[in-house]
Amino acid sequence: MSKTLAVGVDLGATRVKAGLVEGDRVVATLVEPLAPEDRTPEGAVERLAATVARLVADRAVAGVGVGVPGVIRHATGVVSQSPNFPAWHDLPLADLLRARLSVPVLLDNDANVVTLGEARYGAGRDAGDFALLTLGSGVGGGLFLGGDVYRGAEGMAGEIGHLVVDPEGPPCGCGGRGCLEQFASFNALRRWVQRDRLFGDLTGAAVQDPDLPERLFQAALAGDERCRSYFDEMGRRLAVTVGGLLNLLNLRLVVLAGGIARAFPAFSPALFAELPGRAFPAVLAAARVVPCALWEDAGILGAAALVLSR
Amino acid sequence: MSKTLAVGVDLGATRVKAGLVEGDRVVATLVEPLAPEDRTPEGAVERLAATVARLVADRAVAGVGVGVPGVIRHATGVVSQSPNFPAWHDLPLADLLRARLSVPVLLDNDANVVTLGEARYGAGRDAGDFALLTLGSGVGGGLFLGGDVYRGAEGMAGEIGHLVVDPEGPPCGCGGRGCLEQFASFNALRRWVQRDRLFGDLTGAAVQDPDLPERLFQAALAGDERCRSYFDEMGRRLAVTVGGLLNLLNLRLVVLAGGIARAFPAFSPALFAELPGRAFPAVLAAARVVPCALWEDAGILGAAALVLSR
Repeated sequence: MSKTLAVGVDLGATRVKAGLVEGDRVVATLVEPLAPEDRTPEGAVERLAATVARLVADRAVAGVGVGVPGVIRHATGVVSQSPNFPAWHDLPLADLLRARLSVPVLLDNDANVVTLGEARYGAGRDAGDFALLTLGSGVGGGLFLGGDVYRGAEGMAGEIGHLVVDPEGPPCGCGGRGCLEQFASFNALRRWVQRDRLFGDLTGAAVQDPDLPERLFQAALAGDERCRSYFDEMGRRLAVTVGGLLNLLNLRLVVLAGGIARAFPAFSPALFAELPGRAFPAVLAAARVVPCALWEDAGILGAAALVLSR
Repeated sequence: MSKTLAVGVDLGATRVKAGLVEGDRVVATLVEPLAPEDRTPEGAVERLAATVARLVADRAVAGVGVGVPGVIRHATGVVSQSPNFPAWHDLPLADLLRARLSVPVLLDNDANVVTLGEARYGAGRDAGDFALLTLGSGVGGGLFLGGDVYRGAEGMAGEIGHLVVDPEGPPCGCGGRGCLEQFASFNALRRWVQRDRLFGDLTGAAVQDPDLPERLFQAALAGDERCRSYFDEMGRRLAVTVGGLLNLLNLRLVVLAGGIARAFPAFSPALFAELPGRAFPAVLAAARVVPCALWEDAGILGAAALVLSR
């Protein structure tokens, strides 16, 4: 067995999470919050470099892989834009980190990184081509085709969350409307909760609570009709997208990742009930739709895999 | 220049069209109608073998490529099922033809064949990855990724016509509803004409007339509001699918082929007006949506390319 160590970094909206990876194991993790000054381009480079240096200490690592939300040019390591870091424009983050850390640094979109992690070590292992959806604040995605993440002409491929499931649906942050993201994300749940005044508290903390999906999930499992209706709608809308991916790419596997995918038992009955009307029988018969296997570790393992699988 | 000859066969619902191909040129073509007895598995093999033999005469050919509508297993040359030939089930057409013709025979889905033809000799030449839609009686599609047609796990990939553009839309022959095929095909035009009693003749020959799309197209160009509304709806619905393909695969090119694509000037204004709301600006800015280049020759050149590009 190789003893090669690599660092995988999962950069989120509010924190940086770095892991030291050996093979398929995360052997150490460091999570640090992002202060306001860490959100500028210069501040983020400082913060990321400092966190990685603290994690690595005096160990030798093969390199650092970083997953970043937004539009990433993997080949050149440039962040074109990121919804979580609006001040970043065409930031050459890989080069800036490489200069600080003196090891190879590779960058990719956060959902692509999760896809690579699940492909190498998780639900996509030995499974051939597959699609992965990250159901979180929004909906991201990745395509694993022909042995690697499929990135497309500008590195922006895999935006499964912005496939349209209702052409007249709610406006989306992407400029479109009725995208899957408007029906299968934390933000969708929050919108429904507000619409129904579920906690009688439109302005309060309830709808900002990061545990909201879990509360709704538990309530749905306990039989609350309104909460069940949310996950039913989520499942039905997911079926349109998942069926489309199956028909388009004739995949045998679709993997659901991200925090909202933990509610799989709540939304999967509606998803599986709707799928036969949304995909060819012959395609569907050969396909599986499953939750991811790595959960919290996918981002770190996948980011490290950018380095380890080169 | 190579003088290698190959045969490309385009098997349609009502006729077989075979072409002798040298490089990127069709040097001879033979079109023969399909009689009822030509539609059984045995009859079709007879008809195809006889047509090819008559076309080839005493010339030496490298092989025969055949494009067939339906679900084709390219690797084994088996027709799993075909909407135009309901009696065919898992027909090993390539093997049966090879036994008759004593040359290599390769089979693929008709839309994949058009995609390969446009990739090698037409609108997709030197263009990298692209998607192609065939707008005909129904809507077929093909994906050209990484230098070849992407076929997926069972060879059924590329079913762009069965991506959903309206989840509550009309039922589709595939078992789903609201598929693109219900809005961007000859059958869609026919449905609208019947709905509007455009020719006052619901049962008559007008809606079966193969020249119907051309008549509607000319009427739309001449300013007929109802005919324009058909092509506007077609363009708007196409934008949902084309935008989805661009977002999903970050393509730089989408090619529109098939008879209805000849009405490009009628439906493309609505398509291009709707696209900015259906695709990321950065993806759309790098992308072109164009009519095909080969038209009637695409099926023959693409089928021959199955053989010539091996």
